[in-house]
Amino acid sequence: MAAAAAGRPQRWRCWWRCWWRLLLLLPPLSAQEMRVADTPRPPNILLLLMDDMGWGDLGVYGEPSRETPNLDRMAAEGMLFPNFYTANPLCSPSRAALLTGRLPIRNGFYTTNEHARNAYTAQEVTGGISSWELLLPELLKEAHYVSKIVGKWHLGHRPKFHPLKHGFDEWFGSPNCHFGPYDNKARPNIPVYRNWEMVGRFYEEFPINLKTGESNLTQIYLQEALDFIKKQHTSQQPFFLYWAVDATHAPVYASQRFLGTSRRGRYGDAVREIDDSVGRILQLLRDLGIAESSFVFFTSDNGAALVSAPTQGGSNGPFLCGKQTTFEGGMREPAIAWWPGHIPAGQVNQQLGTIMDLFTTSLLLAGIQPPLDRVIDGLNLLPSMLVGQLTNRPVFFYRGNTLMAVAMDQYKAHFWTWTNSWEEFKQGINFCPGQNVSGVTTHTLQDHTELPLIFHLGRDPGEKFPLSFRSIEYQKALAWFRLLVSQHLATMIPGQPQLNVCDPAAMNWAPPGCEKLGKCLTPPESVVVKCFWPH
Amino acid sequence: MAAAAAGRPQRWRCWWRCWWRLLLLLPPLSAQEMRVADTPRPPNILLLLMDDMGWGDLGVYGEPSRETPNLDRMAAEGMLFPNFYTANPLCSPSRAALLTGRLPIRNGFYTTNEHARNAYTAQEVTGGISSWELLLPELLKEAHYVSKIVGKWHLGHRPKFHPLKHGFDEWFGSPNCHFGPYDNKARPNIPVYRNWEMVGRFYEEFPINLKTGESNLTQIYLQEALDFIKKQHTSQQPFFLYWAVDATHAPVYASQRFLGTSRRGRYGDAVREIDDSVGRILQLLRDLGIAESSFVFFTSDNGAALVSAPTQGGSNGPFLCGKQTTFEGGMREPAIAWWPGHIPAGQVNQQLGTIMDLFTTSLLLAGIQPPLDRVIDGLNLLPSMLVGQLTNRPVFFYRGNTLMAVAMDQYKAHFWTWTNSWEEFKQGINFCPGQNVSGVTTHTLQDHTELPLIFHLGRDPGEKFPLSFRSIEYQKALAWFRLLVSQHLATMIPGQPQLNVCDPAAMNWAPPGCEKLGKCLTPPESVVVKCFWPH
Repeated sequence: MAAAAAGRPQRWRCWWRCWWRLLLLLPPLSAQEMRVADTPRPPNILLLLMDDMGWGDLGVYGEPSRETPNLDRMAAEGMLFPNFYTANPLCSPSRAALLTGRLPIRNGFYTTNEHARNAYTAQEVTGGISSWELLLPELLKEAHYVSKIVGKWHLGHRPKFHPLKHGFDEWFGSPNCHFGPYDNKARPNIPVYRNWEMVGRFYEEFPINLKTGESNLTQIYLQEALDFIKKQHTSQQPFFLYWAVDATHAPVYASQRFLGTSRRGRYGDAVREIDDSVGRILQLLRDLGIAESSFVFFTSDNGAALVSAPTQGGSNGPFLCGKQTTFEGGMREPAIAWWPGHIPAGQVNQQLGTIMDLFTTSLLLAGIQPPLDRVIDGLNLLPSMLVGQLTNRPVFFYRGNTLMAVAMDQYKAHFWTWTNSWEEFKQGINFCPGQNVSGVTTHTLQDHTELPLIFHLGRDPGEKFPLSFRSIEYQKALAWFRLLVSQHLATMIPGQPQLNVCDPAAMNWAPPGCEKLGKCLTPPESVVVKCFWPH
Repeated sequence: MAAAAAGRPQRWRCWWRCWWRLLLLLPPLSAQEMRVADTPRPPNILLLLMDDMGWGDLGVYGEPSRETPNLDRMAAEGMLFPNFYTANPLCSPSRAALLTGRLPIRNGFYTTNEHARNAYTAQEVTGGISSWELLLPELLKEAHYVSKIVGKWHLGHRPKFHPLKHGFDEWFGSPNCHFGPYDNKARPNIPVYRNWEMVGRFYEEFPINLKTGESNLTQIYLQEALDFIKKQHTSQQPFFLYWAVDATHAPVYASQRFLGTSRRGRYGDAVREIDDSVGRILQLLRDLGIAESSFVFFTSDNGAALVSAPTQGGSNGPFLCGKQTTFEGGMREPAIAWWPGHIPAGQVNQQLGTIMDLFTTSLLLAGIQPPLDRVIDGLNLLPSMLVGQLTNRPVFFYRGNTLMAVAMDQYKAHFWTWTNSWEEFKQGINFCPGQNVSGVTTHTLQDHTELPLIFHLGRDPGEKFPLSFRSIEYQKALAWFRLLVSQHLATMIPGQPQLNVCDPAAMNWAPPGCEKLGKCLTPPESVVVKCFWPH
């Protein structure tokens, strides 16, 4: 808007009315956009999703210790997105958004127990991904993709939510975060699955030493990825690998070879091990001669958890606050696309992207039409990646059931602000340590809907200087934002909220396969309560 | 210290006692270190010094708009320093330090009117660079270098301080900042010199449009640089070009071609024009076939002026506060070395460097022994640049006459903290907008000398989380810092302070050459007062 968009209101208005036409027009993709048409089959798709890794954690994004040579090389050979957003500042909802291409408010990964609350699939949560939702691996089957998830699922841990019931063919990983250790009495340790069955639990068969930070989980996840790629290469079937590692989520861990090697402490050790792993995955693609037929995208589920910094949390670079907030530090993510021979090397892509775009883009790469019977929030990134054609599109920032903010072009409007409550803050829980922007980083849920706080993210990426309400720039931007939001809300049909109900009996007491390991635990009596989400 | 230095106390102790031996040992440099020996003459030296540009203003340092392709390419072909410091968070003292290789407390660029005050050569200041100080261009004469300064001098504007009296052979630029316009009655406009004489004044012969931000000064400075390089190339004499442009200092400006082209607003326009200019300078070196015989170093005089942000100030990336403070945002600078065929391409140099190192390094490149009759604070960077050999060295952060902080290895201790006074802060003068670290960003001059605040800059580059006083890590680091500081202070002989005395008659009323232009102004009566430095 303002300078940038002032010259193209026509195009923008058309975009708003006609955006769906773009999807219809795209498949089959033009030859210019999709050189994949020359290849005998659609490209393999590898989505490398980090956990709580921040925008500022990679050398290529300015991290001063510069310890990510493999990711920096991936960017040099591929394309860097400086303006790429997640769909939610918390793990479960952003992962649900990635796999459904839809905002959490639509796919059900939110709570209505209180307003604007972050919620996720903690063990006691009874909900999960609705069977009505269509997940990326489910849809990719249409093009005969074989799909594997390695690492954290986080879309529900009860049997009906199992990833193999939602399109994945293989799974090695866990349904929840690796918190613990638990006593297996009040709370069971989180299971680790291979496909349909549990093969052990964190802190038991899959140890994490909280004192030293040692765990070989990233090495296991790496091996799972490499083995899957090799197997699929042999079988000559296109594959989808969703590599959702979690070493950078507290408690952060690294294997012995990496512990103590980073200038950044334990968190840096975890980053270095992941960087090394990404390097090995890309190298395997090169070695197998399938680099040019493999689309790889690296990103993270939400901003760095500054509440765990500095030893257990990363960096959001110049941005405000972190995980749990809808400021840039919570929402803007590192993002690198890599597809040698197709995506030009060493380019920077200024498209406003979202994690949901990976759904749409992956489907179109596979030659599959995204679902037309539901609203899809994901944009096709191929025009921006392959022919440099940027699309003006808004990005909506929800926290739970509440539309907190909207970004569009270089502007961002905050309709509601808060970080967490005064009570939590006084207890030392701080999502914005060392940062405090008067009237912006609020500890009450503050209503700015009448006069939103508007920032120009080009001049002020750190959201420190709201535009003056009286400026012409503000008034112009406000008019656009009002229109955008009214159109967005007019067609918004929220999904059934999945993160409202908790029950201790719903925890991972006796996952499938536990009997073979002699590790079934007796669940307590069912006590259904409203989940409590403090922030 | 701690992990990194624990294994080398011996070396470190030796470094402290024997550092001077290194200098003695170096000239003549080993063949491994100095392939320049193969060339018929020492390399040309180009120091590109920015004004108020921040660490976070370059794409290669993570600036999200990524608008510095030429500087990013310079880094890709050269070497990036993520841990490079200025000698002072303000312009004049840091420039004096660059050219003398000495801390401002030694070379006189400080004030004793009050403690810990930032001072510079405003027009009414009577002081300047002492004739006892040996400046880089003076010393380079020994190796027959021809030296030119383009842009801001800032080491005193009275005739005896003229750069051509301190070793430069040519000058095009100004003695002071381009503040204004003034009325030429209470205060004269700043003159622009060519060599010995004024050729005009800012806002008169050299216009800067404060409303639009338009000025072609950077283009003039670029042309001066290109012409000088071509001329020296023809004359076959080695040259030293000190290119001290000031478009990123408020009031920021750009020429018409660049105005409105940046996603970052006017400040970004200025950065883009400078980036383009650096690209053209490097390209000329390539075109003339002298790239391999030209050592180029790009850095800035102090951190971005957040007090002028967002429209007139830049970005310090993830660092705390900005110009005027001794936090990382005020002291850490963008820094790129470029010397094709000598400095390996695309490398990151983790040496703790300072702007004073450019003095020592430049002399050694020219095969000249740095002065032995005075303390030189600059380190030879050649071992780190050419053979990857890092030197453990402390970096001392002064503000005026006060040792505020020390960095060493990955640790930094703050002995005194303050940003500015409550009075100034309440008037809206904020050197740390949106940032507030309890007990760290203080508005009184706070004494931490007994128990300094210590940060681990690897884990916490943003100085948000001081180490616990009770931790073993703190105690170990504290012991080192105490030793360092006592040794430093034991041998410290402060220079005669140059920034104490002000007099309206000392202003640029009648610079040499004014009579030819008919632009001599009548100075007022001399009134000698103590200069007032509010922060």
